[in-house]
Amino acid sequence: MAKQDRAIRTRQSILEAAAVVFDERGYDAATITEILARAEVTKGALYFHFASKEELALAVIDAQMPDTVQPAAPTSSSKMQELVDMGMIFAHRLLDDALLRGSVRLTLDHGSTNLNRSSPFHGWTELHTRILTEGKERGEVLPHVVPADTAELIVGAYAGINTMSQAVSNRVDLERRATVLYEHLMPSIAVPSVLARLDMAPGRGARALAEVERMRKSALDASEADEAEELGAAPAGVA
Amino acid sequence: MAKQDRAIRTRQSILEAAAVVFDERGYDAATITEILARAEVTKGALYFHFASKEELALAVIDAQMPDTVQPAAPTSSSKMQELVDMGMIFAHRLLDDALLRGSVRLTLDHGSTNLNRSSPFHGWTELHTRILTEGKERGEVLPHVVPADTAELIVGAYAGINTMSQAVSNRVDLERRATVLYEHLMPSIAVPSVLARLDMAPGRGARALAEVERMRKSALDASEADEAEELGAAPAGVA
Repeated sequence: MAKQDRAIRTRQSILEAAAVVFDERGYDAATITEILARAEVTKGALYFHFASKEELALAVIDAQMPDTVQPAAPTSSSKMQELVDMGMIFAHRLLDDALLRGSVRLTLDHGSTNLNRSSPFHGWTELHTRILTEGKERGEVLPHVVPADTAELIVGAYAGINTMSQAVSNRVDLERRATVLYEHLMPSIAVPSVLARLDMAPGRGARALAEVERMRKSALDASEADEAEELGAAPAGVA
Repeated sequence: MAKQDRAIRTRQSILEAAAVVFDERGYDAATITEILARAEVTKGALYFHFASKEELALAVIDAQMPDTVQPAAPTSSSKMQELVDMGMIFAHRLLDDALLRGSVRLTLDHGSTNLNRSSPFHGWTELHTRILTEGKERGEVLPHVVPADTAELIVGAYAGINTMSQAVSNRVDLERRATVLYEHLMPSIAVPSVLARLDMAPGRGARALAEVERMRKSALDASEADEAEELGAAPAGVA
């Protein structure tokens, strides 16, 4: 168990070191030697987890996708707020999350190599399509909206303001740009009563992320309580 | 005169060859040798026009900006139609204009080198800001719109759908994506009476480009007529 924990931690530090090197140098110029030096692990440890620079880059790219540990947005009163929160949290995390920064750099940087960068585009598009479809079922979305088309637009447009923010301000102004994006798009997506209640202001990213943390903590507490209960109930359960 | 014409043609074929090589290989991997082979010019001719690979890349990047020969959009009944036309024409031209394709590839591809790619972002943002400001003066634009913010959003979002279209379909679906973009954004920008008259449908790019060509041709005819008149008037003008 402790050994497995250590392996997970080692894998994570390799990923984070690789993300920093990819972010600074780009995929082509990054070297395994530099990643090893930064991660402070042995060559053997790195190749135990990742067979090649390409595999490492693909793992860094995948790390931007939300999972059960780090959901994309807090559960909210409206699906449309969840949609906005995904982008606002992303902009906020990008300021100081090295793994996310490396992932974004690799995704938006179509260099000379044939690294497959399309998975985050597909992943985010699917996620947006699902939320828009659920929002539509709940009557939050205007009737003309085609969830898949609008999802692709949001993901593509967001990638663009990200690229531009990178070029102009090293991403410092991304959250303000995300606010401008949602203020322009949401009136064409959400019904007025939902639109009027949306929080799309700068600062929403930090607030929503704090909610995600609270959700995660209380889910963790609940599962620990369940576990304790199960342990307590076990003797009775033994036939 | 003929010599100058030849120099302009040579410069143009070098630019086009370079654009194709940059589009296929990216900036870092592209070589002067490959560009020379494709342009079928001598090394001397190339270095007469461009001092370095960087200077060549910057000239290719700049080639996407509209000029007097190739304006961004036809003069239209509304400034908002001009705004839409800029993007629809761009998407249409990108299908078969090698110079534009190379320029876009270099602009959106922030590789490991320090090539300055920001000039098209600034150039397009200025152009959009000017048209939005003129539209506002004419009462075509909703009161809350801040021209500079909305301009940056459109340019950034457009760059993103371009990147995504490149990744997913080698840019074949860019015009459809541009339509979806404008259909979502324009209701937050244009007043309803202008909005109702906008043509944002796929195919608009080709139609608008044909109008630009007609404009250019009639301007050319007019200037030739002026010239002929001047020539005819010359003897009388000699004191």
